[in-house]
Amino acid sequence: MLQSQLFSKAQKKVPQEEKSINAQLLIRAGFIDKLMAGVYSYLPLGFKVLKKIENIIRSEMDNIGAQEVFLPVLHPKHLWQQTNRWRYPEMFKLKSRLNKEYSLGWTHEEIITPLVQKFISSYKELPVYVYQIQDKFRDELRAKAGLLRATEFIMKDLYSFHQDEEDLDEYYQKVKNAYLKIFKRCGIGEGIYLTLASGGTFSKYSHEFQVITPSGEDTVYLCLKCKLGINKEIIKEEKFRCPQCENKKLEIKKAIEAGNIFKLKEKFSQPFGFFFKDERGKEKSVLMGCYGIGLGRLMGTIVEVYHDEKGIIWPIEISPFQVHLIEIRGKNLKIKKTAQKLYKDLEKKKIEILYDDRIDKSPGEKFAEADLIGIPLRVVISERTLTKNCLEIKERKKQQINLIKTKEFSQFLKKFFKKEY
Amino acid sequence: MLQSQLFSKAQKKVPQEEKSINAQLLIRAGFIDKLMAGVYSYLPLGFKVLKKIENIIRSEMDNIGAQEVFLPVLHPKHLWQQTNRWRYPEMFKLKSRLNKEYSLGWTHEEIITPLVQKFISSYKELPVYVYQIQDKFRDELRAKAGLLRATEFIMKDLYSFHQDEEDLDEYYQKVKNAYLKIFKRCGIGEGIYLTLASGGTFSKYSHEFQVITPSGEDTVYLCLKCKLGINKEIIKEEKFRCPQCENKKLEIKKAIEAGNIFKLKEKFSQPFGFFFKDERGKEKSVLMGCYGIGLGRLMGTIVEVYHDEKGIIWPIEISPFQVHLIEIRGKNLKIKKTAQKLYKDLEKKKIEILYDDRIDKSPGEKFAEADLIGIPLRVVISERTLTKNCLEIKERKKQQINLIKTKEFSQFLKKFFKKEY
Repeated sequence: MLQSQLFSKAQKKVPQEEKSINAQLLIRAGFIDKLMAGVYSYLPLGFKVLKKIENIIRSEMDNIGAQEVFLPVLHPKHLWQQTNRWRYPEMFKLKSRLNKEYSLGWTHEEIITPLVQKFISSYKELPVYVYQIQDKFRDELRAKAGLLRATEFIMKDLYSFHQDEEDLDEYYQKVKNAYLKIFKRCGIGEGIYLTLASGGTFSKYSHEFQVITPSGEDTVYLCLKCKLGINKEIIKEEKFRCPQCENKKLEIKKAIEAGNIFKLKEKFSQPFGFFFKDERGKEKSVLMGCYGIGLGRLMGTIVEVYHDEKGIIWPIEISPFQVHLIEIRGKNLKIKKTAQKLYKDLEKKKIEILYDDRIDKSPGEKFAEADLIGIPLRVVISERTLTKNCLEIKERKKQQINLIKTKEFSQFLKKFFKKEY
Repeated sequence: MLQSQLFSKAQKKVPQEEKSINAQLLIRAGFIDKLMAGVYSYLPLGFKVLKKIENIIRSEMDNIGAQEVFLPVLHPKHLWQQTNRWRYPEMFKLKSRLNKEYSLGWTHEEIITPLVQKFISSYKELPVYVYQIQDKFRDELRAKAGLLRATEFIMKDLYSFHQDEEDLDEYYQKVKNAYLKIFKRCGIGEGIYLTLASGGTFSKYSHEFQVITPSGEDTVYLCLKCKLGINKEIIKEEKFRCPQCENKKLEIKKAIEAGNIFKLKEKFSQPFGFFFKDERGKEKSVLMGCYGIGLGRLMGTIVEVYHDEKGIIWPIEISPFQVHLIEIRGKNLKIKKTAQKLYKDLEKKKIEILYDDRIDKSPGEKFAEADLIGIPLRVVISERTLTKNCLEIKERKKQQINLIKTKEFSQFLKKFFKKEY
């Protein structure tokens, strides 16, 4: 894409009340725009990242046999009354002109459970795995963490339906592994700790996926023996020892929750009377699991983890572009031609490239913006590189600038992508 | 996909109050589920169609240089007050716990105009084309037309920003052509009439894309000389003659509106004070166009146009699958093996295939369901086809059933896809 065509632009100012690193950098770099507290628009760059995260999640959900659906935002009151959750204070409520009462979905158990129930009555039809990627809404009193805790946010929520605990356990493991793959592909595989959290009424533990990072809002106790995180609530119950190995040497770290998985068991099948007939014709409650990832939250988390004082440093698989080509034109028109040719060649090879073809920006401004936007590889064509038949190469996460022969660039790229993906 | 795995199932019953053909067939065939009046869930089959429509629209929008964004559903009151549209009765309104007032977006001029305004101040930065695909909400008093007039619906809305009328006109034409391409790819190119409609305050005409079909809710007057539709309002003003050629022999037809395009001109740039500096440094209002297509509405329209008494007849490019493979097993296990092999071979070739591997359904039930679901090509493997080294082939839109040699199937498919796409 030509950077001159991009309608959104990098900015120096951010809204004063925006305190979080993720929102500050994403707004300054032109990925998102703040409409009001907790509510953001995704601009073209941000939308590209969002789509990449979405596609990673979708492919890993499909890999574990989940079927994608799309459930409404507007929910009828009676379903939420049935589970006694209509009173949830964070839930937005509204009325139609005819005085019908709705809520805006902040989760979808109340919709998916009776929906799947319509089609399933026998053990032969179980298990079922269903997911969606959809807007959700939560009436936050203080929405101050940028994309980490938004009022309107995009979630992937997966729900699984089983005939017994063994089957639920097995799928729960599969989802755990799928989540680890998702986070790895999003570049935060290293910092992720599977973390024990409270399971509510129905299960001893649920699991959070906590990313260790200094700006994290959660506190996690790490057992390095088990490679396990333990959250605050649990660690108090367990008297500050690891519930798995009883280790008392735990490291205290700040972290951000990037996803969570729950065994709901009968929590929702009971109030909806969702039963099935087992092999012997006996009626039993369906057992459920639910598994969430916030897409915008994940994007915000990645920015919190990968940035420096100059800007964002995107992991390659979710970067809006793979290569940032910068033309430092000067008066030599041959520079433009060389840059245009490289741009076309790379596009033909299906490499995603942002080409800074702007003529009203100084080299310094262009470099500063490139650092702010954070594409993994910067390639510069200038008077100097041209005379040497070279390209100037800089990886966003490194300091070093290299000149490489133009004819060797294709080989270099292959190696670079191999290393990064 | 294995049909035995599909959690949604074809049904004989539909909700009593569901009068529209599109909702009846889509619910019976398991594409959508009705949550409440005007609010539907997309089940796996329906979601696949939705995604195909989305991808067609996205590719045609990208082709005319539009940049994709994702704008919030929750809108702050003050922006809608600025354009004097806060009182719009179909707009859902709600309050937060802190008494902040929001509306749910039913269109996004109030969001996109001040957003683009943040980045654009000079003629050099114009034109700008921005679109999104997002949920929208309208508080309908009577939501009775299935996906054609839903309370919650998915829209593609494109907005364009220009420095003068000439530039707006030129892009308006481009969008018109892109829309015709979209409708052609969705299989309704033949029945589409570009139709003159009222332009509101700022423009003599806007354009609707009307699909002629007996169940249509709109009345359109067709001038066959101009290949132009004229809507009710306009035809009355023009005293029942074609505004282009003055032809008085007009055909009256029922139609469904599948999309519309408007020249907004200064309607929104004025209240937001969205000005730019022209080449001479003079301040001028930005001129806008807006261009909508409802994705679910389009899906419903296609069903209204393409169905028979047995079910839906999907055009191939938006069909959930390209081939419906049906195994009539009987007692011969070789039938299953042959079907499985064909299924795998076709999947390898990236052909999308629904494989009816269910053993608890009679051949009659399987055929009836296949007709209801409406995939363009049905392939049957049975005792009879096996002994003849054949496959039984039936196109959904034809009556005729043919046997073809198994080894000739690949050739047949190529020809079939060439004809259909």
